[in-house]
Amino acid sequence: MDRPDIRILGVGTALPGPLIDNAELVRRFGLPEVWEQWIDTFVGTSSRHFALDLASGEVRYSLADLAEQAALRALAEAGVEADEVDLMVMGSATPDMLMPSTVTLVADRIGVDGISTYQLLSGCTGAIQALDVACQMLATGRHRTALVLGGDTCAKHLDPSIDLAELSLNMQVNAVLFGDAAGAAVLSTRDAPDAPVLRRVFTRLVGRGRAPGQTVDWYGWADRHSDREPVNEDFKAVEESAPVMAAEALQELLDDLDWKRTDLDYVLPPQLSGHMTRRVIEALDVPGAEVISCVAEIGNTANAIPFIQLERALPEMAMGDRAAGVSVEASKWIKAGYAVEMPDGSTGGV
Amino acid sequence: MDRPDIRILGVGTALPGPLIDNAELVRRFGLPEVWEQWIDTFVGTSSRHFALDLASGEVRYSLADLAEQAALRALAEAGVEADEVDLMVMGSATPDMLMPSTVTLVADRIGVDGISTYQLLSGCTGAIQALDVACQMLATGRHRTALVLGGDTCAKHLDPSIDLAELSLNMQVNAVLFGDAAGAAVLSTRDAPDAPVLRRVFTRLVGRGRAPGQTVDWYGWADRHSDREPVNEDFKAVEESAPVMAAEALQELLDDLDWKRTDLDYVLPPQLSGHMTRRVIEALDVPGAEVISCVAEIGNTANAIPFIQLERALPEMAMGDRAAGVSVEASKWIKAGYAVEMPDGSTGGV
Repeated sequence: MDRPDIRILGVGTALPGPLIDNAELVRRFGLPEVWEQWIDTFVGTSSRHFALDLASGEVRYSLADLAEQAALRALAEAGVEADEVDLMVMGSATPDMLMPSTVTLVADRIGVDGISTYQLLSGCTGAIQALDVACQMLATGRHRTALVLGGDTCAKHLDPSIDLAELSLNMQVNAVLFGDAAGAAVLSTRDAPDAPVLRRVFTRLVGRGRAPGQTVDWYGWADRHSDREPVNEDFKAVEESAPVMAAEALQELLDDLDWKRTDLDYVLPPQLSGHMTRRVIEALDVPGAEVISCVAEIGNTANAIPFIQLERALPEMAMGDRAAGVSVEASKWIKAGYAVEMPDGSTGGV
Repeated sequence: MDRPDIRILGVGTALPGPLIDNAELVRRFGLPEVWEQWIDTFVGTSSRHFALDLASGEVRYSLADLAEQAALRALAEAGVEADEVDLMVMGSATPDMLMPSTVTLVADRIGVDGISTYQLLSGCTGAIQALDVACQMLATGRHRTALVLGGDTCAKHLDPSIDLAELSLNMQVNAVLFGDAAGAAVLSTRDAPDAPVLRRVFTRLVGRGRAPGQTVDWYGWADRHSDREPVNEDFKAVEESAPVMAAEALQELLDDLDWKRTDLDYVLPPQLSGHMTRRVIEALDVPGAEVISCVAEIGNTANAIPFIQLERALPEMAMGDRAAGVSVEASKWIKAGYAVEMPDGSTGGV
């Protein structure tokens, strides 16, 4: 079946507030100074943005605030008006509320209405699931121009009044791993021969019989005074599995497109932590590709990641260049990937 | 473009524990007896199931437990094995955790792996959004057999130790409106000429410029000791808008299919409360259709609703019969609908 190419018309991101380095993080959370070195050595993440003001504890930006900003930037770059958007799909593990979904709040703010909206709940691969849902709906022809969003904020999980030193290793590591951000992309099947083509997107659950690598719980009115910590992570399992799963995801993408590793000009790897990402990059084994990675500077920005990476990669990519993005979610073990190809300058595009 | 029909091969549901009538609800929550009459008069919901044991406060079933049960029932009715399922989509406003998503846990339990899974976060229309995502993915041909699920439980919001009498009207009404349940359906584009056809599914956000009709918040580690109530509802706005939006959703469905109201044999209306559903049914104005409604008995079961209604309707539907399902979500004002048509017995189906 001959379907029109799905073009990426624009990408936008939003990173809240100043960069908080490890020294400040450690100080704000009242942790011993030596933690700064511990984070540098074992985690490898140097800084991150927070939607929360660490000095006052005030939440300065909601996820909707960040996603709205990213969306407006993506639409502006795409030269697309709100009334041309006929589909919105958003991924997040930290929606502002259970209801309304954050995507509906963003739609209202940017002037989009009367359309289908979907809010996906997942960790890192949520944003790729969102790209996937959008691409499938563009492929049926029922939709033409999709605004896809992703983002996360730690504001409900973290607070400077929390005594991190008293909590479990799980809570401590998770407090330093993540960074807040949101991102968005405008995808369309309209004729745009100079725009990058989103060639493939996939996600695949492979967690059968495996205990989750990470769990994140939420509280309601009835159980919020519980002392059970909301976060649990099997760091060993993640360390063992993430590189393998990332390499498998890349291979699946390449096989499906009939591309070779040497065909890749850019690789956009999982952004788990500075340390883990280095190990994953090795396992991906694409020495000829330029790596687009910023986790050491902005932390694991979960559902914002692919948009942040694309925002950095696309302006650099030359005619005919190919990029592969890979994500691994340790929750119940999900592999995901996407491939982008720049037009090669010949008539009609790629 | 000629696409294969999407067939409903099986439907299953799970309703936890015994029915709790208003008298028992009022007693368990330590409310004045007169509340029983208040609920009967103003809400019109007589009973509901809870995943929570009201006597002990113990959570007897997680959402994953209920969804697993519903899924197994749907698969059994469909005669479909787990390894034939190539897509799972679930809707819920009350996932068991933020991560992993409940759909991935259900996949593991029923033996489904290596496939794409999506967890949608929304109120009542979430289940229809899930049907919609599944249908779009079946339509591209990338998937062939989808397991679609929906469900909600109040377990994190409600607890018999809560002093409901001390809380706001919002919290009190919401405590009596809802019921726990899960449902599932197996959809496929395989050749199944005797199975009902899912003719259309749509959802549409129409909330621009409107304050939410209902908000439901969640707590994380940082904000769980807050005294802010998690639920807010504008009952007046819901009362005014739900009938209008439901009628519009039905009209949109009929127009799209070129069906008339008189073509409908069954209508599956929104299940907000006994009282609201009666008003909505009037507004839908389909006097010739049989109404499939059980909200007075089992409460507002949110994301389980379409599956519960289909499970009741499909065995009754005769060859050539047509059914329309409608849902209205007050969170940010979303209309949704779906249409089912039984084969008419002629060669090749409908």
